[in-house]
Amino acid sequence: MQLFYNSDINTSTSSITFDKIESRHIVRVLRKKQDDVLHITNGKGFLFDAKITIASDKKCIAEIIAHQEKPKPWGYYLHIAIAPTKNNDRIEWFLEKATEIGIDEITPIICNNSERRVVKLERFEKIIQSAMKQSLKFTIPKLNKPIKFNEFLNQDLEGETYIAHCEEQDKNLLKSVVKPSEKTTILIGPEGDFSLDEIKKALEKNYTPISLGKSRLRTETAALVAVNTISFINQ
Amino acid sequence: MQLFYNSDINTSTSSITFDKIESRHIVRVLRKKQDDVLHITNGKGFLFDAKITIASDKKCIAEIIAHQEKPKPWGYYLHIAIAPTKNNDRIEWFLEKATEIGIDEITPIICNNSERRVVKLERFEKIIQSAMKQSLKFTIPKLNKPIKFNEFLNQDLEGETYIAHCEEQDKNLLKSVVKPSEKTTILIGPEGDFSLDEIKKALEKNYTPISLGKSRLRTETAALVAVNTISFINQ
Repeated sequence: MQLFYNSDINTSTSSITFDKIESRHIVRVLRKKQDDVLHITNGKGFLFDAKITIASDKKCIAEIIAHQEKPKPWGYYLHIAIAPTKNNDRIEWFLEKATEIGIDEITPIICNNSERRVVKLERFEKIIQSAMKQSLKFTIPKLNKPIKFNEFLNQDLEGETYIAHCEEQDKNLLKSVVKPSEKTTILIGPEGDFSLDEIKKALEKNYTPISLGKSRLRTETAALVAVNTISFINQ
Repeated sequence: MQLFYNSDINTSTSSITFDKIESRHIVRVLRKKQDDVLHITNGKGFLFDAKITIASDKKCIAEIIAHQEKPKPWGYYLHIAIAPTKNNDRIEWFLEKATEIGIDEITPIICNNSERRVVKLERFEKIIQSAMKQSLKFTIPKLNKPIKFNEFLNQDLEGETYIAHCEEQDKNLLKSVVKPSEKTTILIGPEGDFSLDEIKKALEKNYTPISLGKSRLRTETAALVAVNTISFINQ
């Protein structure tokens, strides 16, 4: 199934007009014709069937003929707050893979040791959207604006909060502390790890320090192992 | 720690001569001088300390002054046989991540639906080597030559063998069938999945069909989730 994404549709929408780029893609590339049915998700847990009424490559219009609710296949709520990697490809890779496996919320956090402090949110959004479509998901992860580590800590977050740091300290394995269906937030640090001061502050805010295993992992790998662990615990 | 790799060293080696590229890297880039100590692994579970005797950027020579055995941090033996991805970056990404997390053997398998039938083994080797060095491992995964799916099935493999396919069939989750410390081989198919004939042949050879969860995963993501699952079970 070829899945389209349009965040504006809801169950009371009757017809949808595609922009120039999408129209061209639908009509020219996919060769869709009048009366062909497209499958569209709004990223909010709904799948819509829309029949093309005007197959114009400049302004394709489709009439919504059916919709169904598609509950997300994972039974947890996972929020990963990750320091953007120095090499941008690495975090973009994480965004794609995490979306494939199942994640609910992502926040880029700027830390003391962050070598990258600017990210292209629009590009991140596109990567998440295409991973959602490709993996046939109907719920899109929420991507938050980058925020400074300290400001992130000051938020009141529901559920369990964890920090994955590399300092030698008493830490349990993530897999042995998380429980199924928990709302979970996990902090993943930059290449140079969190600073001691950041770790101290997180512990003061009752973040639980956790380990992801014996291997020394890159930032984006650690983040994906965390996603996988939560998915695994909930399987 | 900066880790170097040289597969030729063993515990009876007394000195090592670096080739032109490495010598230049050591002397020009890393600015190493005579009497500086380098840390080198042979990828066979040993770490060597070598003191530079001649800091030449054309032919750097170091004398091995100590060695220690470094057992691998993971307690399992995992062999992933994976169909090379159409987009080469994707399998290269898998090689890096799997090496970081912990894998023992990788075989590219050419399947009926494989869109890519040629791989650059030398480049794959380099990616595995740098991931091993970067993640401070001392055991290098074995990379086998590409082999046709049917020929792979005809090998006599020790331990448990699994096939991860997407057909609607009775399948258990990998996590619920693997046991710790098992020697495990897992087949991961190409973008178009294994063909029905390939699945049938694998079952005839007593491969256990497994699922990696509810999500629809790309080839390289499925392979990494498999690695993660085995690592997880053995944590």
